[in-house]
Amino acid sequence: MISPTLTNRKFILAQRPIGLPTRSDIQYKEEVVRPLSDGEILIKNYFLSLDPAIRGWMDEVKSYLPPIVVGEAMRGTTIGKVVESKNPEFGQGDLVMGLNGWEDYSISTGYVGPNKMGVIEDTYGLPWEYFLSVLGPTGLTAYFGLLDVAKPKAGETILVSAAAGAVGSIVGQIGKLKGCHVVGIAGSAEKCDWLKQTLGFDAAINYKNTTDLANAIHQACPKGVDIYFENVGGEFLDAALVNMNNFGRIAMCGLIANYNSTDPVPGPYNLWQIIVKSLTVKGFLIRDFVDKFPPAFGDISVWVNDGFIQHRDHVVDGLENAYDAFLMLFDGSNQGKLTVKISDQD
Amino acid sequence: MISPTLTNRKFILAQRPIGLPTRSDIQYKEEVVRPLSDGEILIKNYFLSLDPAIRGWMDEVKSYLPPIVVGEAMRGTTIGKVVESKNPEFGQGDLVMGLNGWEDYSISTGYVGPNKMGVIEDTYGLPWEYFLSVLGPTGLTAYFGLLDVAKPKAGETILVSAAAGAVGSIVGQIGKLKGCHVVGIAGSAEKCDWLKQTLGFDAAINYKNTTDLANAIHQACPKGVDIYFENVGGEFLDAALVNMNNFGRIAMCGLIANYNSTDPVPGPYNLWQIIVKSLTVKGFLIRDFVDKFPPAFGDISVWVNDGFIQHRDHVVDGLENAYDAFLMLFDGSNQGKLTVKISDQD
Repeated sequence: MISPTLTNRKFILAQRPIGLPTRSDIQYKEEVVRPLSDGEILIKNYFLSLDPAIRGWMDEVKSYLPPIVVGEAMRGTTIGKVVESKNPEFGQGDLVMGLNGWEDYSISTGYVGPNKMGVIEDTYGLPWEYFLSVLGPTGLTAYFGLLDVAKPKAGETILVSAAAGAVGSIVGQIGKLKGCHVVGIAGSAEKCDWLKQTLGFDAAINYKNTTDLANAIHQACPKGVDIYFENVGGEFLDAALVNMNNFGRIAMCGLIANYNSTDPVPGPYNLWQIIVKSLTVKGFLIRDFVDKFPPAFGDISVWVNDGFIQHRDHVVDGLENAYDAFLMLFDGSNQGKLTVKISDQD
Repeated sequence: MISPTLTNRKFILAQRPIGLPTRSDIQYKEEVVRPLSDGEILIKNYFLSLDPAIRGWMDEVKSYLPPIVVGEAMRGTTIGKVVESKNPEFGQGDLVMGLNGWEDYSISTGYVGPNKMGVIEDTYGLPWEYFLSVLGPTGLTAYFGLLDVAKPKAGETILVSAAAGAVGSIVGQIGKLKGCHVVGIAGSAEKCDWLKQTLGFDAAINYKNTTDLANAIHQACPKGVDIYFENVGGEFLDAALVNMNNFGRIAMCGLIANYNSTDPVPGPYNLWQIIVKSLTVKGFLIRDFVDKFPPAFGDISVWVNDGFIQHRDHVVDGLENAYDAFLMLFDGSNQGKLTVKISDQD
């Protein structure tokens, strides 16, 4: 039984943001942890994942998850340990990964909607924070989006937008492991160099350095595009569509071009290409593949341990820095998958 | 051997249209039929199909077919008889369906790209013009788009745009045969009555009579939309997207909202719904299913002969009226699938 005077540091959603979130929207607070009810577990959080999707949950919009409630903790995926359990499905000491709060301690039923929180049975000798990045939501999104949704065949051409991001960089590397020609789109020469020289992409396009993205894709993909892994939307989608081969597949992972805009982003204008080229566009979320997480962990851990997949984690130290860290997502100043270290492993 | 002085009446593409085609773009002409070369066949055309896709082929745009050449015959699907053959794959008297010209006589290799022109072995006792409508490209588009692309299951909800059109009306009726809840969107009260009372649709939405299409769909599809058969695009697609159920399928058949517009049609704005609902959007053309035409003819002919599928053909008499008839497609004044009768059956 945990001390009833255990203090919980947390960030709450104080009010819904308009555009970029401010310090008035996300406020720091301390409170005493309440006792558990039957069916609940108490989780001590070690790492918190900061992701663009959190911005969406702050709005009063019906989506795949309910909005964060004003006055309650900011939501985010954490890695934590069960320190007290009144739910027979979880034991004290279980290492869990799931949607909790920006806080030291989270109380949970162990479920998010109908889905049970993941229990990490084996860490494969890897640091815990990897289960928020290359083995976590972003790595799993890359893995299932490419392998189960887009289904690449050796020799095909894969185009990835936001290729230097936490998802896109893994997509490209798995594509190379599957024998594909892989081309990334990124926003700086440094990122493009990293994609080609460190990650082994066949080509990379700096979109800030071209006035005709469709033509740049055509040059980098001389045999056309079989698979487009979409993280951006808008004009990126238009430029990809005109380069798709017949029967091409588009894995629709993100449309970040639209996330903070208060006006609708115009277009895409080229959706007719979907018809004349018999394309398939598939949206997905990793919740669609929960049953396949264990073999995915197995595959990815081997690739990481054997050095076939490189990844960059940007770990910010200290829960108290979570707000400042979150803003990095929107000016792109984070260097790799962004997580916050809440507590040392014990 | 055909008389070398056989006269061919035809419409040619005189110049590429801007917006709606004019009489200066599509001009009438008469000329003598030239002798066949080896490998060619001479087809006497009986019926010509007029379809919105023809408008696209008039533009200088790379697509699944090359643009119609300026100065040459307007392109369209015809039903005709081989009256002379220098191609061993076709015999004199063969009844063929394929892309030919708006003309009395067409000379062809018997192939369109890699695809051999269809030879109709059995008319199932049905009038020849049915092979341009319910058993032709529009009926086959409905059949394959619904059954092979969207794959309905009994009890699911199907939403169809341009539901009173040649494709949409067949989609809805096949959907009812498969045990689905079928809702159509059309542009007049008369069309909606026809869908419900004659074709057996469960509900029909007159989009000209609603200011909130998304809400009208919600009312007509209380269990959400599992399959959206898309013929229109733009705001119709946006309104359908917000009503889709998780794992819903969108069969992308046409985007007629965009065809004659000289400015890009804004939106769609709701593509993020594809991600959060794990939707699949699939474009298709009937060329993808050429091998499956014979069983499709078998199924559809039974449904037509047994009265399970109703259809409206709007047959305009006389090749000379083809231009005026074509314009009906763009103001919606045709009553059913539009064909032109070029010659009496003999």
